[in-house]
Amino acid sequence: MSADSPVVVLLTADDVPPPSDLSTVERLADVRRATAASLADALPGADVLLVWDIFSGALADGWHAADSLRWVHVAAAGVDKLLFDDLRASEVVVTNAHGVFDEPIAEYVLACVLANDKQLHRTEEFRRRGEWVHRETLRVRGRRVLVVGTGGIGRAIARMLTAVGLDVRGAGRTPRDDDPDFGTVVSSADLAAHLQDVDHLVMVAPLTDATRGMLGVRELAALPDGAHVINVGRGPLIDQPALTAEIAAGRLTAHLDVLVDEPLPADDPLWTLPGAHISPHMSGDVIGWRDALSTQFLEKLRDYVAGRTPGPAVDKQRGYVPGTVR
Amino acid sequence: MSADSPVVVLLTADDVPPPSDLSTVERLADVRRATAASLADALPGADVLLVWDIFSGALADGWHAADSLRWVHVAAAGVDKLLFDDLRASEVVVTNAHGVFDEPIAEYVLACVLANDKQLHRTEEFRRRGEWVHRETLRVRGRRVLVVGTGGIGRAIARMLTAVGLDVRGAGRTPRDDDPDFGTVVSSADLAAHLQDVDHLVMVAPLTDATRGMLGVRELAALPDGAHVINVGRGPLIDQPALTAEIAAGRLTAHLDVLVDEPLPADDPLWTLPGAHISPHMSGDVIGWRDALSTQFLEKLRDYVAGRTPGPAVDKQRGYVPGTVR
Repeated sequence: MSADSPVVVLLTADDVPPPSDLSTVERLADVRRATAASLADALPGADVLLVWDIFSGALADGWHAADSLRWVHVAAAGVDKLLFDDLRASEVVVTNAHGVFDEPIAEYVLACVLANDKQLHRTEEFRRRGEWVHRETLRVRGRRVLVVGTGGIGRAIARMLTAVGLDVRGAGRTPRDDDPDFGTVVSSADLAAHLQDVDHLVMVAPLTDATRGMLGVRELAALPDGAHVINVGRGPLIDQPALTAEIAAGRLTAHLDVLVDEPLPADDPLWTLPGAHISPHMSGDVIGWRDALSTQFLEKLRDYVAGRTPGPAVDKQRGYVPGTVR
Repeated sequence: MSADSPVVVLLTADDVPPPSDLSTVERLADVRRATAASLADALPGADVLLVWDIFSGALADGWHAADSLRWVHVAAAGVDKLLFDDLRASEVVVTNAHGVFDEPIAEYVLACVLANDKQLHRTEEFRRRGEWVHRETLRVRGRRVLVVGTGGIGRAIARMLTAVGLDVRGAGRTPRDDDPDFGTVVSSADLAAHLQDVDHLVMVAPLTDATRGMLGVRELAALPDGAHVINVGRGPLIDQPALTAEIAAGRLTAHLDVLVDEPLPADDPLWTLPGAHISPHMSGDVIGWRDALSTQFLEKLRDYVAGRTPGPAVDKQRGYVPGTVR
């Protein structure tokens, strides 16, 4: 290890497998492993923090010990668990798993759209009861989708649903009519005004102060009867009790891969409500996902060691990587 | 009704709603309604038979009374229930619901592909048990599909799966490497030789003497472990006991929308085998499907009344509409 090697703290947890590229990382850097409990001891003198235990919020507690930290990489798309005021105010660069989950999550969202419109879950219910009950289902072509969140994942969703024939728009900070992936982007600040003709509402916005609870009582009420909500963003984007009430009333259906509390508590009515389809925060986790995350960090570390700033950087005020149109 | 109006026999059943365009048909033709029991009484003097009760095989029994029949239209994609030797040998033109089901069934097949690769049914099983069990699922992009049947429905399936990133080939009568929808078409006569690298096998061939049982013990054994069989064609394309054994062994999974006997008998093991997903012959039956079938017949009847031969005609020897590349 040369004297110039950066010190990288690997924040992990006992139940998380190590990065597959760890031995290569160790040739480039002086790696210290830490868990949430030992992070403050590992941070002094560290240049880089790799948040590999992506649900950890330990950096806020250990921040006082981060005396030479220059870069934090979190191996997740969402940085909401990581950010806090002192980090935002600092010069520390934050990067995330930008791009890794785009297409896997788009495929998952398409699966949920088709499962809803072709009634796959009802068909399985009838099958379990041994009942042969013919039903008519929906054409997917022409169904109207609003994707809330116009980052890389939202864009991959738009491209995939458009390829199958759905009629897709986006909702984001900046309304426009010439978006390359969405065509029309409506204002997410005015969401309730854009929901009355939505068949599938896909929530994939980053969780920030501006988006927390953005799908609330008023917005849910604006959705037409029979609309289908898909959440692959973060649980707190949605007023979960309000959505639960709409599903219980039979007015809406939902596929929810993220929830306000994860795991979903055992007594939550969403487990058993017809029309609510819970999955355990797995929409982007395709076989090989951890390897892809490891490789992505290694590539950024090579940039860092070569004196380049790793990117694209998270806008720490906004809480996401801005302006990512491809 | 003018003297030149053709006589159209509408073969229907008590539980089948009438064609939505019936009043328009009645302005163009002298319509006689019949069921299987009364068909022989209705046929003498009839020019046209509309087989609206698509599971009826009554024409074979009533054929002796078809003294002036020129055209039979069956409101279904498959004509296997209709054809018999005397009809094949006759001059009577047979048409079918060519095109109506192409895209609806393609959407359904895509739903089954995604449900399999994203483990939606397993996720629902865990949900029903109240278990939060994270799993890794498959990227759909690059998964290898063989579509057995290169008619209109198979082509629509190929286009849709290709649009989502799957790697699709076809299997048909005439092998080729330059097919506009499939790229490569392998010989269905030699099916077992083309199955060892198939992730999703989609059965959508017409049921004929050449295709009955085409997916048998030998072909099923040639599929790799974990392969997924989708049948949206006809049940007897597959050796159903052999497939059942492969599913029971945990080696294959399947979405079966058509079965050898429909409804599937109550004591059939396919109802309860993990890995077998039965649906009641509904893959193409989107809301409005009967209206689309009615409109299609009306358009062909207008051709007939104008002195044109309705088409495209079923090749009665082969049992399907041949050569339909678009």
